[in-house]
Amino acid sequence: MAIFSYLSPVFIAVICILIAVILQNKRNNQKEKKGKEKKKVESRPWVDEDLQDGTEVPADEEGKDEYQDIDEEDIEHIPFTPRRYDEQYMVKRSKEFYEVLNQRRSVRFISSEPVPREVIDNIVRAAGTSPSGAHTEPWTFVVVHDPEVKHKIREIIEEEEEINYRKRMGDKWVNDLKRLRTNWIKEYLDTAPYLILIFKQIYGILSSDRKKTHYYNEISVSIACGILLAAIQYAGLVTVTTTPLNCGPRLRVLLERPTNEKLLMLLPVGYPSKDATVPNLKRKPLDEIMVAI
Amino acid sequence: MAIFSYLSPVFIAVICILIAVILQNKRNNQKEKKGKEKKKVESRPWVDEDLQDGTEVPADEEGKDEYQDIDEEDIEHIPFTPRRYDEQYMVKRSKEFYEVLNQRRSVRFISSEPVPREVIDNIVRAAGTSPSGAHTEPWTFVVVHDPEVKHKIREIIEEEEEINYRKRMGDKWVNDLKRLRTNWIKEYLDTAPYLILIFKQIYGILSSDRKKTHYYNEISVSIACGILLAAIQYAGLVTVTTTPLNCGPRLRVLLERPTNEKLLMLLPVGYPSKDATVPNLKRKPLDEIMVAI
Repeated sequence: MAIFSYLSPVFIAVICILIAVILQNKRNNQKEKKGKEKKKVESRPWVDEDLQDGTEVPADEEGKDEYQDIDEEDIEHIPFTPRRYDEQYMVKRSKEFYEVLNQRRSVRFISSEPVPREVIDNIVRAAGTSPSGAHTEPWTFVVVHDPEVKHKIREIIEEEEEINYRKRMGDKWVNDLKRLRTNWIKEYLDTAPYLILIFKQIYGILSSDRKKTHYYNEISVSIACGILLAAIQYAGLVTVTTTPLNCGPRLRVLLERPTNEKLLMLLPVGYPSKDATVPNLKRKPLDEIMVAI
Repeated sequence: MAIFSYLSPVFIAVICILIAVILQNKRNNQKEKKGKEKKKVESRPWVDEDLQDGTEVPADEEGKDEYQDIDEEDIEHIPFTPRRYDEQYMVKRSKEFYEVLNQRRSVRFISSEPVPREVIDNIVRAAGTSPSGAHTEPWTFVVVHDPEVKHKIREIIEEEEEINYRKRMGDKWVNDLKRLRTNWIKEYLDTAPYLILIFKQIYGILSSDRKKTHYYNEISVSIACGILLAAIQYAGLVTVTTTPLNCGPRLRVLLERPTNEKLLMLLPVGYPSKDATVPNLKRKPLDEIMVAI
């Protein structure tokens, strides 16, 4: 009994420590959870959740000892002698290209008038000449012409965009876009003869079912989109560059694209409608965008 | 004394709980720290550290009640009636553009032969016609012609690239690039008559010293780079698309760019050297990059 009465305060202390540690752990776990949730809520509103998660292959998912199925021999190198213009003609061409591109505007009013499919093929071919990290060509261009599919795309985008405008984006961004008369009604998704949805492949799939890393896939596909925009303009068609916020997963499922593909951009392509208008914006002059050293 | 001897086990228990809570907190803090460090170490090797940190404006740094200095009135909207080509000519133009761009190759052997400055101005002008999120035009093109500055750029890049190849990139990536005969010796940084360094402005600075959010700045600037590449090719010059890994901060300081600008890409521009070679790579055919619905 003497031993027991001597131990009793120590015993109580031990139990108390155990309780304290358990409670503390529980609280920390909740904190962590909350922190994660908070992070999600505080996420940059203009970044599509679909772009944010899994932009690149998670290192642990990929496996460190997997190697690509490529021929590890050096690829043959061949002489390269492209066509060469004389200086005067080069200046003329560079000016001509600038002038064609400077006519480009983002047009949200697109006519339903048909466009030759061959033109669409050629502009996608042009985009496919884009450089990419380690020549992975990590892009898929889904060209939608079917009116029913176009309408389903519109339904998904308008549904999500309304939530974006009303809840996700915040006053500041909505305010910035108001100037451009941008809202969640996207008639052009029905009227444009073609919608081009550009997917980035966050990793490639080799014949052996192993994954192939796609370095810099988002930057590569964005560069390809730049070339696509130039091709559309050069052909004399119009578009508007859109990044449908939070619609990626639903559109991917609708268009039956595999899980390694994430929607990066959607471009409606066609002629401008007869009553098309654009905001009267100016571009920065050369001396505001270029620094010569 | 009776009270004291009654309290003593309780007293010990309270002190023990306090000690346990303090120890637990300390351990958790260390865990958090470790977690953060681990995250940094596990970062994707092909993403420039400079691109990773601060890609967008941190929400708390920005201040929630700051608004942009823009005229909040709607911008005037004006009719838009671009030039229109007949179908046949449109098909011809789209094909012609594709064929010009399909001649493009990434060239790592660039001649020191001079290039008219006017051509450089025009290709940068063309890139500046690119669309951008909420028309923020978040790009700066630094055109370096001065041989000493070019050489300093080369020194910085080769120093960092050697570390990248030897330590940061890992066998897999180095292996992928070996096929393209890419290494850390970048002679073109000295020989190319012009280096164009493209910076993305992660936020803008208003006259009132307040920050202006640049939505989607990385995607916007990548699109502009796509148009720049098309312009370079259309003019008959060559380049190679490079994203100097981990060199951003040092190059930014060298070129005296403000802290809101982060290096996205570097393009050496010129004629190919006489003995220029390129890896004998093929591009995917249309049916591998396009899905028609």
